Amino acid sequence: MIDDSARTQAYRHAILTNYPLFYGKTVLDVGCGTGILSVFCCLAGARRVYAVDASGAAKFARAVAAENGYSDRIRVLQCRAEEAELPEQVDVIVSEWMGHALLYESMLDSVLVARDRWLRPGGALFPERAVLKMALCTAPELALETGGAQFWRGVYDRYKVRMTCLAEVEERRRWSDLPARVCALLPEELHSHAATVCDLNLHTVRAEELRELRAPAVELQSFGRAQLTGLALWFDVHFPGGDELSTSPYVTETHWGQTVLPLEPVNVDQDSTVQCPMVMRPDPKHPRNWRFSVDLAVGDGDSRTIQWVMDGTG
Amino acid sequence: MIDDSARTQAYRHAILTNYPLFYGKTVLDVGCGTGILSVFCCLAGARRVYAVDASGAAKFARAVAAENGYSDRIRVLQCRAEEAELPEQVDVIVSEWMGHALLYESMLDSVLVARDRWLRPGGALFPERAVLKMALCTAPELALETGGAQFWRGVYDRYKVRMTCLAEVEERRRWSDLPARVCALLPEELHSHAATVCDLNLHTVRAEELRELRAPAVELQSFGRAQLTGLALWFDVHFPGGDELSTSPYVTETHWGQTVLPLEPVNVDQDSTVQCPMVMRPDPKHPRNWRFSVDLAVGDGDSRTIQWVMDGTG
Repeated sequence: MIDDSARTQAYRHAILTNYPLFYGKTVLDVGCGTGILSVFCCLAGARRVYAVDASGAAKFARAVAAENGYSDRIRVLQCRAEEAELPEQVDVIVSEWMGHALLYESMLDSVLVARDRWLRPGGALFPERAVLKMALCTAPELALETGGAQFWRGVYDRYKVRMTCLAEVEERRRWSDLPARVCALLPEELHSHAATVCDLNLHTVRAEELRELRAPAVELQSFGRAQLTGLALWFDVHFPGGDELSTSPYVTETHWGQTVLPLEPVNVDQDSTVQCPMVMRPDPKHPRNWRFSVDLAVGDGDSRTIQWVMDGTG
Repeated sequence: MIDDSARTQAYRHAILTNYPLFYGKTVLDVGCGTGILSVFCCLAGARRVYAVDASGAAKFARAVAAENGYSDRIRVLQCRAEEAELPEQVDVIVSEWMGHALLYESMLDSVLVARDRWLRPGGALFPERAVLKMALCTAPELALETGGAQFWRGVYDRYKVRMTCLAEVEERRRWSDLPARVCALLPEELHSHAATVCDLNLHTVRAEELRELRAPAVELQSFGRAQLTGLALWFDVHFPGGDELSTSPYVTETHWGQTVLPLEPVNVDQDSTVQCPMVMRPDPKHPRNWRFSVDLAVGDGDSRTIQWVMDGTG
């Protein structure tokens, strides 16, 4: 993840330019990994950083702290953030907790527990706000996949066996139950401005609210005539002082990419209104999987409910 | 898999050119999938094909049989091959059971049960022989991976945080416990002729013999001075009448590719002898994973034991 410059430089810039919030202060780094955010906090003058990670990366964080001369200021704790025992409240929590579509396999729950337990009143959060966006899109990869049907039609030419019956199956299957998937969209593949699906104030949001996120009034206007094949999701997070890290298709690509909820192709005219109120929640059976449900209505047409699962395979 | 022309055409050619073995005869197709091999058998004149598959593909096999006009000759059974109940012995068993490195997640066990139960004495097997080969190689992908260490050294230039300590970890880790992996090797990446690791007569091999395959005398001679970074494995299967399907790097690529067991780079001179007796067996804890153990000795050097696991992640 360190290789993701857009991500790492956004944190670096936000931390260093906010050095008054760090200088002489105490910091908790939730899910520190190899500890680069902790080192940024020391560079900004932090007196003490508690760097917490449950994985074996904790020992690398310790080595990195030492190599940078901060063994005395960075205290690495290998445990779950929920189980960390600190000797004091902290002035700042830094964490890179975001997942695809913001919340898929995200660590936000751990950050909220740490916030409620260890952040002193009035303390700062890096980031402090997270916004999930949605826009209409054409995902070219999806168009390519419909080649599956074409493939079956071509089997006769190759092997003299007819398999057109499978092309029909392929087409029926193709557009039902396609999983959400991570793509790198180009700006020209977007066909609307982005609407806000949710806007989380990380100082106040509660873990229970993340169990079901409802966006009842999402409405998108198509830029022009287009064939839509998906709804694109991405997020921005905001740091104190105005810095932000965006995963939008309009800025430098990050490892998060964008998340596309594939649609059976639908044609829209210029300025068509597309209503797409959405509900997001973890799958009750497989809580690591995330479920999206949208009541899609194009123009004056009736709405139909479409569901997707995000299971890491898309 | 039908998209793999080298594979599908090899079966097609072997079946059609052996039509005297099929004409008016009964066939069992083990793991029929969408049923293309069963149709080939009908094209070769089979009177009756029992097409067995435990997966939902069975219903597609039924549709494909109908589309090709063979509903009366192909009887599709959706069940495990071990549980199939046929009304008669068969004259031929066809099956495409091979996995990466021949036996990784292969269906050979099922074919052997079907053979012992349903193949009439003197019946034919397609394929009837399977040979696993090994050669010395340089796998360029692996060389690239050592860039990981270089990456950590470069972190300071990007973020002003020193992480060279992780480069050392990376290098130590890189060459221990690397999993076996599937590659597409180029002929020029091979540095020896291929030795035979095992040569299975599918008429006589017993499932117990597959629980541990020993190749005590594998010896390879390097073509020239080279830096070896792996042992390459691939297989050939042979059909009655002389047709074969090879997954060697010297012929058309198949979806099986080659399997590479990564080595910490070792330099060899021209005509160096590399002893690499091997033992292959399923992991006792995770039987789907396959373990390879080689006692590697270069020239007159001492041998050292290297182990790899093939777990589908490599």
